[in-house]
Amino acid sequence: MSDVKPTIAILGGTGALGTGLARRWAQAGYPIVIGSRTKEKAQEAVTELQSLMQERGVDAVAVEADDNQSAAAKADIVTLTVPYAHHASTLEGVKADLEGKILIDVTVPLRPPKVGTVQLPDAGSAAQEAQALLGEGVKVVSAFQNVAAHHLQEGHGIECDVLVAGNNKEARAEVVTLVEAAGMNGFSVGPIANSAAAEALTSVLIQINRQYKCHAGIRISGLPEQDS
Amino acid sequence: MSDVKPTIAILGGTGALGTGLARRWAQAGYPIVIGSRTKEKAQEAVTELQSLMQERGVDAVAVEADDNQSAAAKADIVTLTVPYAHHASTLEGVKADLEGKILIDVTVPLRPPKVGTVQLPDAGSAAQEAQALLGEGVKVVSAFQNVAAHHLQEGHGIECDVLVAGNNKEARAEVVTLVEAAGMNGFSVGPIANSAAAEALTSVLIQINRQYKCHAGIRISGLPEQDS
Repeated sequence: MSDVKPTIAILGGTGALGTGLARRWAQAGYPIVIGSRTKEKAQEAVTELQSLMQERGVDAVAVEADDNQSAAAKADIVTLTVPYAHHASTLEGVKADLEGKILIDVTVPLRPPKVGTVQLPDAGSAAQEAQALLGEGVKVVSAFQNVAAHHLQEGHGIECDVLVAGNNKEARAEVVTLVEAAGMNGFSVGPIANSAAAEALTSVLIQINRQYKCHAGIRISGLPEQDS
Repeated sequence: MSDVKPTIAILGGTGALGTGLARRWAQAGYPIVIGSRTKEKAQEAVTELQSLMQERGVDAVAVEADDNQSAAAKADIVTLTVPYAHHASTLEGVKADLEGKILIDVTVPLRPPKVGTVQLPDAGSAAQEAQALLGEGVKVVSAFQNVAAHHLQEGHGIECDVLVAGNNKEARAEVVTLVEAAGMNGFSVGPIANSAAAEALTSVLIQINRQYKCHAGIRISGLPEQDS
């Protein structure tokens, strides 16, 4: 990558997770396009983000609003943070605009009301569904499923590692860079099938959050020179 | 539970994980029956364990050998640590002896050669397969899938938390106690379906181990009063 930072679209970017990622990446200097079903809805999130950036004294970064499809078309890298119920339909709508790009799929296949029970789809994971729907011309990389939106929204450090899965090694490495830009450690963990681990873990963390009244995450332990 | 500790059988107890758990629990004072396909094979592991206990100056604990079926019949709690290829057949052989008991299923559905790729079975997880095979009269609880045998074998503290899934809440709590007895933190994470998370994570950790030349594990982060 050159010094010019890629433009990142965040589809479904008005939710807690989407705005949280937008804040982190905007602070790191990445141009952001927040997408939503309508440009107007996306504009509200952009206005809020701009005032927050001003409060925090962050130098002007390009943050704009658009509908999901135009946002996908404008961006170099596209992030998807919609509820699972809108996963396939949102992807269908932007499929042509993703060709050749990295899609960062943050979707967790939670099926209310039993969000604390793992219910992975037949394909194995939501990310595998995305890869099948989009075809091999799109580099689907899954990430961020285990990070509490609460922590992304705050300015503090985040005690959660990010598992990064995808069939393209270079794309995984690029997403690991974006994870680090957002203030976390990313681990490149192999093929898109391995997204099942991160997606399933979300229900496990929901169970732990209920018991401990917290926003739990995971850390990878036992690494060389990082044993505490 | 009374002060009398339950007897724990470890089926397939001659492998690295099985002998590791046996060491930890024997050191904590739990009577152990190591099971294998033949009593003779189990006896080798028991002899080794007894000499290790003596080296470490651990007071005599009851450690005996038997074939898998007799071991299951003798024990109050049964642990299964066999390769996935022998999972169903081993359970078939001991099914009648498990009635009313807790079965701690440590099985990870790894399918060589691609052990670094998540390949969960159609039932969702190996633990769900076990519960379906054994029926509701057996309290299947899954645990320990993410702990490196290497760490269990050593005497040191273990930097890995254990996800404990199962449909019976009291059984989960009893297994959490056994996790603590083995020197780790256990988290009760809901129904047996949630074993998918721990089982899938093993392939993710295999990927990380290959990259970092380590024996990685996971820690739950973001807990109250435990933020570091």
